[in-house]
Amino acid sequence: MKAPLSPGSRIGILGGGQLGAMLAGAASEMGFQPHIYAPENNSPAFQRTALSTCSPYEDLEALARFAESVDVLSYEFENVPIEPLQHIEKLVPIRPGISALKTAQDRLIEKRFLQSVGVPLAQFRAVDSSDDLAAAVHELGLPCVLKTRRFGYDGKGQVILRSASDVPTAFEALGGKPCVLEAFVPFFAETSVIAARGLDGQVTSYEMALNHHENHILKTTTLPSGLPPQILAEATFAAEAILSELDYVGVMGIEFFVSGTSEQPMLLVNEIAPRVHNSGHWTQDGAVIDQFEQHIRAIAGWSLGDGTHHSNVVMTNLIGEEMNAWQGFAADPSSRVHLYGKGETRPGRKMGHVNTVSAKT
Amino acid sequence: MKAPLSPGSRIGILGGGQLGAMLAGAASEMGFQPHIYAPENNSPAFQRTALSTCSPYEDLEALARFAESVDVLSYEFENVPIEPLQHIEKLVPIRPGISALKTAQDRLIEKRFLQSVGVPLAQFRAVDSSDDLAAAVHELGLPCVLKTRRFGYDGKGQVILRSASDVPTAFEALGGKPCVLEAFVPFFAETSVIAARGLDGQVTSYEMALNHHENHILKTTTLPSGLPPQILAEATFAAEAILSELDYVGVMGIEFFVSGTSEQPMLLVNEIAPRVHNSGHWTQDGAVIDQFEQHIRAIAGWSLGDGTHHSNVVMTNLIGEEMNAWQGFAADPSSRVHLYGKGETRPGRKMGHVNTVSAKT
Repeated sequence: MKAPLSPGSRIGILGGGQLGAMLAGAASEMGFQPHIYAPENNSPAFQRTALSTCSPYEDLEALARFAESVDVLSYEFENVPIEPLQHIEKLVPIRPGISALKTAQDRLIEKRFLQSVGVPLAQFRAVDSSDDLAAAVHELGLPCVLKTRRFGYDGKGQVILRSASDVPTAFEALGGKPCVLEAFVPFFAETSVIAARGLDGQVTSYEMALNHHENHILKTTTLPSGLPPQILAEATFAAEAILSELDYVGVMGIEFFVSGTSEQPMLLVNEIAPRVHNSGHWTQDGAVIDQFEQHIRAIAGWSLGDGTHHSNVVMTNLIGEEMNAWQGFAADPSSRVHLYGKGETRPGRKMGHVNTVSAKT
Repeated sequence: MKAPLSPGSRIGILGGGQLGAMLAGAASEMGFQPHIYAPENNSPAFQRTALSTCSPYEDLEALARFAESVDVLSYEFENVPIEPLQHIEKLVPIRPGISALKTAQDRLIEKRFLQSVGVPLAQFRAVDSSDDLAAAVHELGLPCVLKTRRFGYDGKGQVILRSASDVPTAFEALGGKPCVLEAFVPFFAETSVIAARGLDGQVTSYEMALNHHENHILKTTTLPSGLPPQILAEATFAAEAILSELDYVGVMGIEFFVSGTSEQPMLLVNEIAPRVHNSGHWTQDGAVIDQFEQHIRAIAGWSLGDGTHHSNVVMTNLIGEEMNAWQGFAADPSSRVHLYGKGETRPGRKMGHVNTVSAKT
């Protein structure tokens, strides 16, 4: 067991979006000094801290200076390039580690890892050509979903194949990049586990909430979820296996489909995100210790905090133009408004979220 | 009714201590850009924001530049010098206003104001000389408390007179400055109202908590307070009168003594603080909208938020060397730790606080 980081220690965060901003806020409140490293000079997280570095991830010199100036290094998104990180791995502890990043950056590696851990997931096939695709569709049947192995998020880099006529063009339509074909799972609910693992190996999970997506982007997360208890138990069990197997340190979001029927529900892992997660934003206003502080506690080597929820919450993402309705939030006493300070409103861009809180039931 | 400030607006805060830091954190989370102005270059709040100005309050040029660069200006402590503020009053709305500062900076003005509002307080006399003091002691009796009119806090600038022999030297012992003599009130409890008033004149108060001081410094705040309901009603009524009379905008802390007996309790105002208040720190982890966000909502012209408490909380200040016990907090899952990032530990210095949260009873 390594010693916990003392107050005043510097916590480096790669990535300057809203997750980095909220991690920085949590770190500051705990008495740490966050340092944000991001390539875009209008990064929202730069507004949240006195220490920031604006440079590309591939700038090994700047990255090494950054690594040497902090006591632990973390990241707010899973697509941090691996190679530069390997250059600084000996300079500073990176938590969660590089192996979690490698796993999450490639859907094929991720799915094979999940399979090896024994958690349930939809059938899948590697697809490296149009011929592979035709063969894979033959095996998994229609409909099915073709996804690029890398850099997909919020529905980007994927296409649903509904009929045989979709098959010949799909692989090239996604740029001819290495893909994974997934069997289409009819599901009646989506949920996620926000789990955390400490430096001491302890794993804890927040209460699972119900997620609702629109246009492949998370729209609401609702707690309590109303999901059957056995599903919740199964999912937290899967989470524990995943985090432990990766020797993970920090918070992870694990998304699930709930398939089958409400009488006979069946849980399938969709994907993992080795970071704090949008579907865990409810914890800011519904749990004793929220996911951002939990992540900082974990990577700082502190004991994990109590994630018990004290309130019911509906978290609603503000996407694109929805942000323009801010006067409504400003007039609503019962909602906590979290806005990301992004300069430009773009369609599909996450601009903020609102947690509407009510008494715990 | 003025228009509410839009997200991205700049919020200026005078003062760089922990209250400024936590106000900056709340403002950022809501999508505003906080700008801290403070004279000390190691101000904790500088760590919490990208925008900061380090200059004396008397530097009218820097202050005017600051005022012109922000959309609203607030302060984290009541001893901001008035005169410089008067120079910038026309450049930017100052909330709460200068009149609240004037009232709170001088115990005599404050007490006369409270008297005029009709809220109960201990008897007092103005004392400008040793002769005044002798006469005032004669009227109010012993024991009594002599306090400087200005710049007193955490027990500084005050002395208890217990016997006649204390009287001749007391005035000079406090530096021969203008003072107020207060009748000594035997009390069995201390409490405070954390109240807020919006730009629209709406007033709301948080649930009152029980305060416990050690060496004149707040040590713990406990919610629920266990205080008799009529006391709570009386105190929130007094708060409403005080804030409305001052045409106040923002959060105010009002400290009370509970005198008499638990069967026949009697409430007396001790003092007011025109700012977020240490005895309101429990709201960070016990209320839907905490006092820092509430203050920002008020000064930004947003509707006041819902201050309902969702959890029981014991807030414990970490004073001086107590900070060295941080490994205990790091190992405690049920406490939220708020540390201020102060470089130097000094006796009596507030270094942080811990909110220990449990289910609401």
